[in-house]
Formats: sequence, C-alpha cells, structure tokens
Amino acid sequence: MKKVITISREFGSGGRTIGKEVAEKLGYAFYDKDLIEKIAEESGLSKEYIEEHGESSPGRNYFGYAFVGRDASGNSVGDYLWRVQRNIIEELAEKGNCVIVGRCADYILRKRTDCLHVFIHADMEKKKERIVNLYGETSASPEKRLREKNKTRAMNYKYYTDRTWGMAENYHLSLDSSVLGEKKCVELITGLAKE
Amino acid sequence: MKKVITISREFGSGGRTIGKEVAEKLGYAFYDKDLIEKIAEESGLSKEYIEEHGESSPGRNYFGYAFVGRDASGNSVGDYLWRVQRNIIEELAEKGNCVIVGRCADYILRKRTDCLHVFIHADMEKKKERIVNLYGETSASPEKRLREKNKTRAMNYKYYTDRTWGMAENYHLSLDSSVLGEKKCVELITGLAKE
Repeated sequence: MKKVITISREFGSGGRTIGKEVAEKLGYAFYDKDLIEKIAEESGLSKEYIEEHGESSPGRNYFGYAFVGRDASGNSVGDYLWRVQRNIIEELAEKGNCVIVGRCADYILRKRTDCLHVFIHADMEKKKERIVNLYGETSASPEKRLREKNKTRAMNYKYYTDRTWGMAENYHLSLDSSVLGEKKCVELITGLAKE
Repeated sequence: MKKVITISREFGSGGRTIGKEVAEKLGYAFYDKDLIEKIAEESGLSKEYIEEHGESSPGRNYFGYAFVGRDASGNSVGDYLWRVQRNIIEELAEKGNCVIVGRCADYILRKRTDCLHVFIHADMEKKKERIVNLYGETSASPEKRLREKNKTRAMNYKYYTDRTWGMAENYHLSLDSSVLGEKKCVELITGLAKE
C-alpha cells in the first residue's frame, strides 16, 4: 500500500479531478486547495498569492526574478514560499494517506519509498476543450493559455528541482488521460496504490 | 482492442522482455530481432549494421554525420535505413496484432488510433544490475555504458522525430519497471491493450 500519491499534471489534462477521485476511492486526504490554505496559514502569504505563484513563481518572469525582490541574504518571496511548501509537503507525507497535487511534490518526496508518483498529460485538442468548458473563453486563445501555463509550471519545476518537467523518468506512472480516459486513469492509479 | 503496441525503452529497463511477454499474453507477433531481419532483407544492409545503427545512427557521431557519408542528394546510409524501417513498421501496423520494440515506432505510428504507445524506464541502480547480469562486465563502467547507449537513442529519436525521447507526452503510458516490477508492467499493458 502506498501512503502518498503525488499527481503532477499538465494544465487542462484533468489531473486534478483524477487525483480527487483517487483520494475518494482510497479514503485518503486530498491536498490541493487545502494545501494552499495550509501554506497560507504557515507562511502568512495570501491564498491568492500562493495560488498564483506557488507553481509558477520564477517561471512567470524568469530573468527578472534573478535580480529583483530578494532580501539581504538573496532570498526572494518565491524561495520563501518554496521552503514553506516543501516543509508542509514533507509533514503531510509523514502523516501519510493522502493525495498531493502539483507543487513539485514528486521531487520533494523522491527519496521516500512509500509514494507513488504519477504524471497526467493529454493531447492539445482535449486540453483545449477542457479549459474552455471549465474556465470559459478569454481574449487569449486556449492554445496560448495552455502553452503559457504549462511553460511556467515547467520553468518553476526546473528552477527548484533541476529536472525536466514531464520526463517519464521522474514518475512511476505517466498517463495520457485523453486516450485512456479519466475513469481508467483513476482505476490504474488506485490499483497500483493498493499494491 | 489495440492492434499494435509500441514499446520504447531505456537500455537496461527490461522493456524488451516486457514487450515479449505482452506479445505472448496477447498472442501477438513480437518484432525486435525479427524486425531487424525484415529490415536487412528489404534494405540489403547487414543485420549487424542495422542492430548497431538502427537506433543510434546519427547519435553515434552526430556532428560528423551531418557532413560525411551522404550521397549526391544529401542522403546518408542512416537516412536510407530510416526510410526502410519506417516503411516496414507502417506495413506491420497495417497487418496489426503485433508488439514493436524501439525504432521510433511510437512516432512513426503516432497518427493511428489503434496503437498503444508505451515507454519503459527504470532507476539507474536497477539498470546497472540488469545489464551486468545480462551482458557481463566490460572495461567501461555500467553507468557509462547506460548513459552512452541511452544518449544515442535519445539523439537518434531527436534527429528523426524532432521530439524529446522519454517525455511522457509522447506515450500513452510510461512505467518505471524498477518500482512497479516487470510482472505488473506486463499486466498493465496487456490490460490496456484489451480495452
């Protein structure tokens, strides 16, 4: 039995929904919004700030980020947020029986042997459909929104982990939700978690 | 039911063995050595040449490759081999009911909807153990042999597909055989092939 499931996911892949269903099926805690609340409490930063920057801080303004907004010891708010997130994720894993979505949890918990690390991705068409259904149309094209969001996730991951986001080798299991379907993904993850 | 399973795999991950067992379980043809024989027949190139270069041609000598060994129309033996391989893989997929290992089959068959594309990887320690057990010790360290072989596979893939080898998004399913175990990998792939 795996005590912790981490779900990394492309924006628009349905990974969050899959993680939530896995948590329900296993009777595990589900940390996504709840995680943001915990981080807000611990860090004193606003939920909005964490939601906006917790997975994309250096990525949003990568080059500027290296030089501005740092304190005397060279730490930025992003680095501070990273440390708080990391500590909370380590504590949650120690308690166990949970599904954690995003926030480099696969990397932070890479040395534990009681975790199942999952990556969920999907083809561009299905992702476009999904975000338009969920979040509506905006002035930017769905493809542009997807590329930007997934690019910042990738840059944030690279910055804090020095690994390439979405490389299969970072995860135990990577699934294309657009081909396999959400239900099948839930079934596969739940099955492996129970091993 | 998926008609074709492609297995891409890190050297040392046991992906070939997993593919063979999947083929047996499904009653499918298994194309690995057999594929090399077909390519030899069709191309007139030796089996040894194909085995050595079919997945690593430009990678082995990437920069030199761009300038030497090309005919008047700029085609190299590697490009010729690539075209023959591609045609054979397309024909095999058309016939169906087969497992194809390596040779960028995931990319070549990416537009078909009757394929399951799988990537098998493993952690460094397990890969080292495996290649020493299978192929014995050599003067180069196991880690060096693994890095070189997997690097040439990645470069070959990049050269012919313009995609990054091992990115989860290229496959429907990516599995860490060192954590999940070979038996479980066979079970997961076979199960999904039957959907």
